[in-house]
Amino acid sequence: MDIDEARALDLSSPLAFARERFRLPDGVIYLDGNSLGALPKAAPQKLEETAERQWGEDLIASWNKHGWIDWPTRVAAKLAPIVGAKPNELLIADSTSICLFKLLATAAQARPGRKTILTQRRNFPTDLYVAQGLADLLGLHVKAVEPDKIQSALDEDTAVVTLTHVDYRSAAFYDMRAINEAAHAASALMLWDLSHSAGAIELDLDGTGCDLAVGCGYKYLNGGPGAPAFIFVAERLQDELANPLRGWMGHAEPFAFVDDYSPGEGIMKFLTGTPSILALAALEAGLNTFDGISMADLQAKSRKLSDLFVSEVEMRCGAEVRLASPRDPARRGSHVVIAHLEGYAVMQALVARGVIGDFRAPDLMRFGFCPLYNRFEEMVQAAKILADILGTGEWDQPRFHRRSKVT
Amino acid sequence: MDIDEARALDLSSPLAFARERFRLPDGVIYLDGNSLGALPKAAPQKLEETAERQWGEDLIASWNKHGWIDWPTRVAAKLAPIVGAKPNELLIADSTSICLFKLLATAAQARPGRKTILTQRRNFPTDLYVAQGLADLLGLHVKAVEPDKIQSALDEDTAVVTLTHVDYRSAAFYDMRAINEAAHAASALMLWDLSHSAGAIELDLDGTGCDLAVGCGYKYLNGGPGAPAFIFVAERLQDELANPLRGWMGHAEPFAFVDDYSPGEGIMKFLTGTPSILALAALEAGLNTFDGISMADLQAKSRKLSDLFVSEVEMRCGAEVRLASPRDPARRGSHVVIAHLEGYAVMQALVARGVIGDFRAPDLMRFGFCPLYNRFEEMVQAAKILADILGTGEWDQPRFHRRSKVT
Repeated sequence: MDIDEARALDLSSPLAFARERFRLPDGVIYLDGNSLGALPKAAPQKLEETAERQWGEDLIASWNKHGWIDWPTRVAAKLAPIVGAKPNELLIADSTSICLFKLLATAAQARPGRKTILTQRRNFPTDLYVAQGLADLLGLHVKAVEPDKIQSALDEDTAVVTLTHVDYRSAAFYDMRAINEAAHAASALMLWDLSHSAGAIELDLDGTGCDLAVGCGYKYLNGGPGAPAFIFVAERLQDELANPLRGWMGHAEPFAFVDDYSPGEGIMKFLTGTPSILALAALEAGLNTFDGISMADLQAKSRKLSDLFVSEVEMRCGAEVRLASPRDPARRGSHVVIAHLEGYAVMQALVARGVIGDFRAPDLMRFGFCPLYNRFEEMVQAAKILADILGTGEWDQPRFHRRSKVT
Repeated sequence: MDIDEARALDLSSPLAFARERFRLPDGVIYLDGNSLGALPKAAPQKLEETAERQWGEDLIASWNKHGWIDWPTRVAAKLAPIVGAKPNELLIADSTSICLFKLLATAAQARPGRKTILTQRRNFPTDLYVAQGLADLLGLHVKAVEPDKIQSALDEDTAVVTLTHVDYRSAAFYDMRAINEAAHAASALMLWDLSHSAGAIELDLDGTGCDLAVGCGYKYLNGGPGAPAFIFVAERLQDELANPLRGWMGHAEPFAFVDDYSPGEGIMKFLTGTPSILALAALEAGLNTFDGISMADLQAKSRKLSDLFVSEVEMRCGAEVRLASPRDPARRGSHVVIAHLEGYAVMQALVARGVIGDFRAPDLMRFGFCPLYNRFEEMVQAAKILADILGTGEWDQPRFHRRSKVT
């Protein structure tokens, strides 16, 4: 495809208008929104309003006057159409890792006698570490199997299954409904990590029978670096489940200051400590970038973007690169990985030319497509630059081989 | 004392200059820095810099370029002189409640076979709820006793003692060294909650033999609403203790993306998930308000402020009010509680007149003194306004009796 054809696609895209909601630096093709979403234009003003006028002027009274006390649920409600859940099933809280621990512990406690946490080998590392830490603490066992062995590994000892829905490397995703049904057939609870799904593809947590989920606020939800995470607990489970990470913000009457814990109603009991209001303010600006966006349109554009990128890369770069994601865009999330033996250095050379993706060992160059701001034109340009870097050997310079702290 | 004498004290105070580091609204006497510290003037610019220039311009590269990956330890190091600890013993992370859970679980795991978490009745509620939740999860027992019975309640079943150093109601505080020694004599670990201590009074965590501590970032440390908390783990314990809330940020090599957990060095293993960089930016501005401040000067001013307030209130208001904090300022933290049968309504009337304190059931009006920004002049003015409200019965209006969500 030539640039003009790509530009024509951009002009006719129903999501073209959404790019104006972001501030993106000139000369950059940002294909790493799956690691850190771009800055929503409204975020700095929202932070200023929260810091200067609310914190600065109204001080402690802001908890009532500006309703800070309700922000974890009020902001979470904006996620409901993005993930296909009811507003009262969602909460913003903590980090993804802490939320994973919280819901895994909740699930383990709800299945006394069962000793297995079932998960996938090469799951996102923190998901494995959290499960291992909880298992050591409670005398449980983490069983990690290949992705296609999850259903056959379920048994009467399985308390909870925890999986990342969209794989952070390959972008392959699980059939949510099938896994939920298999877990339920084994009387286990199912906990999804939606970090690479929420805001990237269409989800229907309620329609597919999800029990529990967590997700990341700083990737496709554009909530800013280290944004708080979200928790989903199906309404039908909220009465029976108890959060073992009790804290005053999850108490039925936090300001009664009584010695004994009584859980708050519904999703509220899953709050623990005092939430960062500044972080919530930025996350709200991130979620507002989805205002009026149809998730069906978003998913359609995501697939078209990644499909165009893959075909342009393959056409221009040939056999030197290899697609390491499912070829069918309907079988992957909103990123792709392209393998190259010198992927680290090639990615550094791309970054130096303004094409920002990231690298995952051993040889995976990862490119994320955010349908709210990425353009078809960028797909063609990025593929051209990649072909250029490979063709000229531009990547083979000492400065591109040096590893940085964060890759 | 008349206002002119109080102003003379302000002029001669070695901390007078520090008020300029804060933005405080006109017409307000803010005596609630123990609930939410005032806005540091540098905070909005720090947020803007972090959001617009770092997140907005440098995007994902900021983790390296702006050193975000090191912020939890870099910002924590600024706490070292404030709490009397080594920089490598401190970490910014999560919320106070989550940090309490993390360190309590760590401590319980380090004392296998021991089944008791010892604490105080009427401890700050979240401290009790966290302990109860962990005890239920692990099959432990929470023993809550009167403050003067802690040492005699220690026995060979005590895994960990958890206490709030400065009581959030009365401001009375424990003898840290004596409690640490008693806990150690029983081979138990000691976990302090410093939420009402850090930034309020002189602390010497290392000198008094502390094991573990957590504290709040949004009170005297001025880190903003719901600021992240801090964790202290004594260097001598860092090798032997393991954090059961494992996460990728506490891994020895977070970006190796391996399936098995290897704890990071020293304090690093107590990190779990990705920290909010925006919340850290605001907290850094809060900690910077302590630059060049001697904690001895700060404590001396705190005592003089509260002493002046108490004597002015007692002199002007007479028997209608009762001091419900220790009378000796050397035996209390940086706030006082004044009891009045209609304390809630009286506090609302005070707030309506611009004197901001808060209320704790059943009858306690709580006033906090932040030596960095509160002035002696404000002590006299606030006492005068309180006397006026009590003398005229101005507080006895329906609008002042209405309870709000957060009190």
